[in-house]
Amino acid sequence: MSDLTLEKLAHMHARDVRQLIREGKWDKPTSGAALGHAQANMIILPKDWAYDFLLYATRNPKPCPILDVCEVGDAEPKLIAPGADIRTDLPRYRVWENGKLVDEPTDIKSIWRDDLVAFMIGCSFSFENALLKAGIRIRHMDMDVNVPMYLTGVQCVPAGRFSGNMVMSMRPVPHHQVVKAVTTTARFPSVHGAPIHVGCPEAIGVKDINKPEFGDAVEIREGEVPIFWACGVTPQAAVMQSKPPFAITHAPGHMFLADKTDADYEVF
Amino acid sequence: MSDLTLEKLAHMHARDVRQLIREGKWDKPTSGAALGHAQANMIILPKDWAYDFLLYATRNPKPCPILDVCEVGDAEPKLIAPGADIRTDLPRYRVWENGKLVDEPTDIKSIWRDDLVAFMIGCSFSFENALLKAGIRIRHMDMDVNVPMYLTGVQCVPAGRFSGNMVMSMRPVPHHQVVKAVTTTARFPSVHGAPIHVGCPEAIGVKDINKPEFGDAVEIREGEVPIFWACGVTPQAAVMQSKPPFAITHAPGHMFLADKTDADYEVF
Repeated sequence: MSDLTLEKLAHMHARDVRQLIREGKWDKPTSGAALGHAQANMIILPKDWAYDFLLYATRNPKPCPILDVCEVGDAEPKLIAPGADIRTDLPRYRVWENGKLVDEPTDIKSIWRDDLVAFMIGCSFSFENALLKAGIRIRHMDMDVNVPMYLTGVQCVPAGRFSGNMVMSMRPVPHHQVVKAVTTTARFPSVHGAPIHVGCPEAIGVKDINKPEFGDAVEIREGEVPIFWACGVTPQAAVMQSKPPFAITHAPGHMFLADKTDADYEVF
Repeated sequence: MSDLTLEKLAHMHARDVRQLIREGKWDKPTSGAALGHAQANMIILPKDWAYDFLLYATRNPKPCPILDVCEVGDAEPKLIAPGADIRTDLPRYRVWENGKLVDEPTDIKSIWRDDLVAFMIGCSFSFENALLKAGIRIRHMDMDVNVPMYLTGVQCVPAGRFSGNMVMSMRPVPHHQVVKAVTTTARFPSVHGAPIHVGCPEAIGVKDINKPEFGDAVEIREGEVPIFWACGVTPQAAVMQSKPPFAITHAPGHMFLADKTDADYEVF
């Protein structure tokens, strides 16, 4: 890898960060990159599974808010980033066969197929800029690690062949900023919006706050409250449980950077 | 019909109004019925067309916010009204063949098929209670007519075989209440949310404000501004243009009453 740092990526346009990723110059998590641009989770499925998944997303809009759906066999997300190619523009992918993770490549050109449908799903990284502007620090940015994500005990509404539990990302926030964190993120319903849960991790079935199922653990300091937001890794939990013959997703934290901005998804 | 009035229906539970409709005792528009309950537009399509429509709705969330999708061949909208039957519980339906309106029955039991999928879509009647509470009068309620709906010049994003222009409902509001009408309805994004347009009807391609394509014309008084909200009759415009072999919809203004309340869809 080059000597690029997130600090350098922070103030670039999403298009330019995608270019760096395409050229193989960035394969790490994208929290903090192209600040102010929306980021997206991704799941790619054979067309035969597309209706079931779109219905799953429709029934579970908090974890799976759909930002864009590519045409069958097409790799360009026309609504959120015309000209982009989702086969090369994410830093890392996960390839799934019958619900098992079989590979984590940095591009998927060689395994692309004409019957695949790519779903782009809102990501909480999109509202982190608003949190920063509201004076709320982001612990995983400060620690330079991936955001912690937990497979919770909260069940999603099943749809067709898809079922699974909700994955949530967690950010610790000082007591006096909890309300601000809720109201700030509530303005962005298309990128997970208001939190699902504030405080006690056991209440949502988190097994061990120090061992997130995805991403990295972060420090929770005295006087801080863990806040949990619905996470776009939820489709990967559904893939593990529902076992479609083939699927490709982003690697957790390694997102697609959209041309769309936070403001495009802000309700108030 | 019986001597029922909207005033009597206003304070009933949605379940009880559905029962009256099922018994054939109410076949008129539902604006103002079961105030505080969400209302829903409906479109029913053969399974073969379901993915294209769900994608159309996903790409056009302002006019087509999905509240529920029934299982294939199933007439119960389990998420928004368990126990209801969408074949009997709407006051009036429209039956479409190859994009042409062929019938307007008051129930659809005799034409129901095992391959049909029913989509329930948010309706702006759901936020009328919030407007009333904010002190904003609703002209079509005061005139006891159907809300005016216009086929505008605003194109929806196509999806698969579906394309068409956006239908919008219109409510005239006094100048001093325009901002309040915007902020009040913005709190309800799942039932069309904030308006698409305020003022000048020509700007959105409305041909004649006195001749709505659906519903009834209402008086716009001196000092009032027409405000336009995205409308769930938009799928019917798509049916006319895209000509699926078979479709059933609600008749404009004749909605499904859900058990869900306004509060269930309120963001703030």
